[in-house]
Amino acid sequence: MFGEISEDLTLDELDNQIVKALQRDGRVSYTDLAEQLETTASTVRNRIQRLTDQNLIKVVGVVNPFMTGMGTVAFVGLSIDFNQYDAIVEKLKGIPEARFIAGSSGQYDLFIQVITPSNTEFYDIIRQQIGVIDGVKSLDTHMLFEIHKQTYDWGTGVNVSE
Amino acid sequence: MFGEISEDLTLDELDNQIVKALQRDGRVSYTDLAEQLETTASTVRNRIQRLTDQNLIKVVGVVNPFMTGMGTVAFVGLSIDFNQYDAIVEKLKGIPEARFIAGSSGQYDLFIQVITPSNTEFYDIIRQQIGVIDGVKSLDTHMLFEIHKQTYDWGTGVNVSE
Amino acid sequence: MFGEISEDLTLDELDNQIVKALQRDGRVSYTDLAEQLETTASTVRNRIQRLTDQNLIKVVGVVNPFMTGMGTVAFVGLSIDFNQYDAIVEKLKGIPEARFIAGSSGQYDLFIQVITPSNTEFYDIIRQQIGVIDGVKSLDTHMLFEIHKQTYDWGTGVNVSE
Amino acid sequence: MFGEISEDLTLDELDNQIVKALQRDGRVSYTDLAEQLETTASTVRNRIQRLTDQNLIKVVGVVNPFMTGMGTVAFVGLSIDFNQYDAIVEKLKGIPEARFIAGSSGQYDLFIQVITPSNTEFYDIIRQQIGVIDGVKSLDTHMLFEIHKQTYDWGTGVNVSE
Amino acid sequence: MFGEISEDLTLDELDNQIVKALQRDGRVSYTDLAEQLETTASTVRNRIQRLTDQNLIKVVGVVNPFMTGMGTVAFVGLSIDFNQYDAIVEKLKGIPEARFIAGSSGQYDLFIQVITPSNTEFYDIIRQQIGVIDGVKSLDTHMLFEIHKQTYDWGTGVNVSE
Amino acid sequence: MFGEISEDLTLDELDNQIVKALQRDGRVSYTDLAEQLETTASTVRNRIQRLTDQNLIKVVGVVNPFMTGMGTVAFVGLSIDFNQYDAIVEKLKGIPEARFIAGSSGQYDLFIQVITPSNTEFYDIIRQQIGVIDGVKSLDTHMLFEIHKQTYDWGTGVNVSE
Amino acid sequence: MFGEISEDLTLDELDNQIVKALQRDGRVSYTDLAEQLETTASTVRNRIQRLTDQNLIKVVGVVNPFMTGMGTVAFVGLSIDFNQYDAIVEKLKGIPEARFIAGSSGQYDLFIQVITPSNTEFYDIIRQQIGVIDGVKSLDTHMLFEIHKQTYDWGTGVNVSE
Amino acid sequence: MFGEISEDLTLDELDNQIVKALQRDGRVSYTDLAEQLETTASTVRNRIQRLTDQNLIKVVGVVNPFMTGMGTVAFVGLSIDFNQYDAIVEKLKGIPEARFIAGSSGQYDLFIQVITPSNTEFYDIIRQQIGVIDGVKSLDTHMLFEIHKQTYDWGTGVNVSE
Repeated sequence: MFGEISEDLTLDELDNQIVKALQRDGRVSYTDLAEQLETTASTVRNRIQRLTDQNLIKVVGVVNPFMTGMGTVAFVGLSIDFNQYDAIVEKLKGIPEARFIAGSSGQYDLFIQVITPSNTEFYDIIRQQIGVIDGVKSLDTHMLFEIHKQTYDWGTGVNVSE
Repeated sequence: MFGEISEDLTLDELDNQIVKALQRDGRVSYTDLAEQLETTASTVRNRIQRLTDQNLIKVVGVVNPFMTGMGTVAFVGLSIDFNQYDAIVEKLKGIPEARFIAGSSGQYDLFIQVITPSNTEFYDIIRQQIGVIDGVKSLDTHMLFEIHKQTYDWGTGVNVSE
Repeated sequence: MFGEISEDLTLDELDNQIVKALQRDGRVSYTDLAEQLETTASTVRNRIQRLTDQNLIKVVGVVNPFMTGMGTVAFVGLSIDFNQYDAIVEKLKGIPEARFIAGSSGQYDLFIQVITPSNTEFYDIIRQQIGVIDGVKSLDTHMLFEIHKQTYDWGTGVNVSE
Repeated sequence: MFGEISEDLTLDELDNQIVKALQRDGRVSYTDLAEQLETTASTVRNRIQRLTDQNLIKVVGVVNPFMTGMGTVAFVGLSIDFNQYDAIVEKLKGIPEARFIAGSSGQYDLFIQVITPSNTEFYDIIRQQIGVIDGVKSLDTHMLFEIHKQTYDWGTGVNVSE
Repeated sequence: MFGEISEDLTLDELDNQIVKALQRDGRVSYTDLAEQLETTASTVRNRIQRLTDQNLIKVVGVVNPFMTGMGTVAFVGLSIDFNQYDAIVEKLKGIPEARFIAGSSGQYDLFIQVITPSNTEFYDIIRQQIGVIDGVKSLDTHMLFEIHKQTYDWGTGVNVSE
Repeated sequence: MFGEISEDLTLDELDNQIVKALQRDGRVSYTDLAEQLETTASTVRNRIQRLTDQNLIKVVGVVNPFMTGMGTVAFVGLSIDFNQYDAIVEKLKGIPEARFIAGSSGQYDLFIQVITPSNTEFYDIIRQQIGVIDGVKSLDTHMLFEIHKQTYDWGTGVNVSE
Repeated sequence: MFGEISEDLTLDELDNQIVKALQRDGRVSYTDLAEQLETTASTVRNRIQRLTDQNLIKVVGVVNPFMTGMGTVAFVGLSIDFNQYDAIVEKLKGIPEARFIAGSSGQYDLFIQVITPSNTEFYDIIRQQIGVIDGVKSLDTHMLFEIHKQTYDWGTGVNVSE
Repeated sequence: MFGEISEDLTLDELDNQIVKALQRDGRVSYTDLAEQLETTASTVRNRIQRLTDQNLIKVVGVVNPFMTGMGTVAFVGLSIDFNQYDAIVEKLKGIPEARFIAGSSGQYDLFIQVITPSNTEFYDIIRQQIGVIDGVKSLDTHMLFEIHKQTYDWGTGVNVSE
């Protein structure tokens, strides 16, 4: 997700309302949403399809990893050679357990979230997949042990009258 | 989400398959899912309701904040007085812009993700809401500038024959 | 400067042009500027007066400290108790040698630039004025030894057609 | 500014007074300044011209970036290969958004201030312009969010009787 | 072990040989050891008893935690208030999972090794037992993931002719 | 020890009991252990032999280095090139004074414990043996000065009814 | 030494020459020095007495600690409460093994050199004398293992024609 | 000093007493010392000569740099490539302003003290002499601003009855 981005994006008022509704409840029915937004179900369906195709939104079931058998969740900060930025990101994207990859600027150059069933698989990925990527100069791990809050309904920064 | 957790959780084979299906596509219809899992739509609907009620899964629309008008995304690491752990977490949970809160052990004791429209709102939250919480000894910010990958289909660590 | 800020600021096209002109040359005459912007000298004078009164711009002679007898230039990063933020900033503002004070978020909470004739005066300020402020938890010094570039004509972020 | 420096600089008493007057008010008129310093306006004008030509002073309009539409202000600390010091500084000087460049010795080898309209432009500069310079080994960013004080009237370290 | 130490310790040549033999093989029989050291089995037995009573040696079965079901092995570095050193050490000694406790001087004041079946138990100990000890100012965790070597036959620093 | 590991390990109930007994007392006699576990001494002997051959347990005499003439005990954290991980570990294993070697992920990539009679020998090893290994990028030393607790009876993570 | 300083110090040309001569050879005879500086031995003797009384110079035998039986040499960096600066320095001055004490500004606030026969005495001083001083917030140790150069003939910064 | 060391050093009782006397007062006369140690002045003279030739002691005039015109005193910590240790140390020894050079193990690999008249000369040495040495990977500076204590009479670690 968020891999191939359509450059020319504009959210109109209706898109904006749909996004916010899905952030609150990803399984809201097309009919209910249409009624709520005073439009037709087929319009809603088309809009969601387009927003999804544009990689602007993805409706997914998010689970608490610790409650569903994934015992190791870590943020890994990488220091890299910026001349190899794109190649490094491509290789990281190919590692399924690297669930989140973001460019940063500070103590780390790249920030990754890795989720695995246990420490054993985690270390294999660090040692044999991430640590050996050409241009990765060092890596630092922050282990998480408990998730207290995880929400996705932050809305959008688009200012439209509601 | 993930606030009130039902202690006594057991995922059976069907729960497990439903979770994985929703991780891939949160809007899959009950009918399609039932067909795929060789059960009835009402069973699927009931199971999803139960999994959701148990705070085990939440189906949400996830957006790329940078593509929808949120300009500031940061990970904030806190060093805290462990004697005030619970009270600090409660206060953090009450800050809407604190989207993710997790217990860590290393350079930081708590890891938070904050998402705001711009640096101005971000700093207000740091300075007036997080920094002043009793028991927060120091905080360190890692600004993110670009999200390269964000996926949620990590499955479960439950070993069941498929 | 930048102490008392008029809340309700709006830069129109003319303000914007005047600001940019002064960023390039702070001593441009009212007449030349008026001619250049196709308005009157008294309008330009009034506008500059208003921009200055609003603490939006200050026209000053900037010198390279190392070339004019100031031997010690340092950035000092402070970690502070956020509950005492305002009082700490007030005390720092009262130290003349603290030339620049800004709120940060990361390794340091406040960033200060201190300029003195020599290391002796610098340390007196650190030890007897900054280090002892109530709520300052620690301070870290980055000494500068040579200034390679210092410019002020960054324009404004205001988008107006020129 | 401060690019080409005339080696053989000596500030006499009059230069010294002129510098201090301009540090307080960069738009003081030649006539007022002459009267104040008991000399002629043409002498003052010549002296200011000479001080400016020698890169000793520059009179500029300084604005608070956050109040004029520049949303991202950061100090960036670089660790570099000292064997490439001059080439690195030259490349940095060619980046307009790098407003301040100084040699340091401590946690960082070079200290840069970068000012841009938003985080997006900032990261482009970090990732595509600064991070990729040959000999830059690592970089660390300190974001500023609010400027509490910014003054330029630090006088000179020259001891002359006033 | 190493809790109550007999102050007045002197290792003679025979003690020294016995220690070294046990470091190599903790289950060597009294008879074999006596023969090897040209003394009697009862002498060897008495000496081992005395060395053990003096807390100078302990013969134990050492297992690789990762191979016997302990999934989490970590070094935890503590920064403490030295005025509470003894009380802190006493409390740490009472935590069974804290397998190794040593006084250090550098980045950390105390160094602890914690071994638990999984990350869950580890974090409980950090958050509810170590982090809350009065006088513990901060803690930092280094997770281990694989043990490549672990030996105990370092001999003694006692110089005796062999 | 722990060098060559038999892949296919399964601890049954009896193995488990034997391991725990040896963790408590490495010199327990075969007869006593057999009686305690309601089996024969030869069974116990065979099992211990097998557990030892599989590198699952090693019975050794553990001494407090500071009490037996070893004056310098240090943890050394290495940052390495992960592409040379195996070769680096092999070289470290060949240094007798490197008593413990483990893979980590965080501030350090490898964690080593070094024990020597005095600082002189310690530094020789750092400077002439560890520091010069190809692929070792940096090393950091944590000196220990006093051991307060060192235990080995952590049992196993194997869940068997006792 | 350097404890009570006479405020009103002025080095004339002769003082300056004497200081430089003693920096090169502390045992040069009064007669040789007088001849060399074209003055009398009693003048030289009086000047050295005065320079010593003013705590400006002290002639001492400097030994390499590692070559004369002192096995532990360390720099200890302290972070302190600046409000207790003077009291902390006084207490540190009373610790004989603290051979050098200086005010710093950066990672540490005070820099101390400690020299002891072995690690045991060193740690006693850290744990029981320095670490427990009121206002000492943390301490960090840098152990030295070998001295490659130690010179004292840096002359003076006084510009006098020779 | 301490450059070429005679390997085979043994301090007898008399050497030991002489060293301690010179540590207290480097200008004690041969006669006074002889009387005090119940030997002859020529013996004392010969012994001091031998101790000096062996690079075991050097009698020098030590000045407080800040009181004699040296305005910049800094400790510089280097991270180096250990494979180039000897060459780096040789080059550092050739820099007169590098007054003290020692091998360390921790945050830094080499520790240097640099003393110069002002920050300008200091930075020239950092930038043009130390920073560019082949194998120096990074350097960090700790500026000192005031010396509170500096003593040299630490005696010897040699145990002789007095």
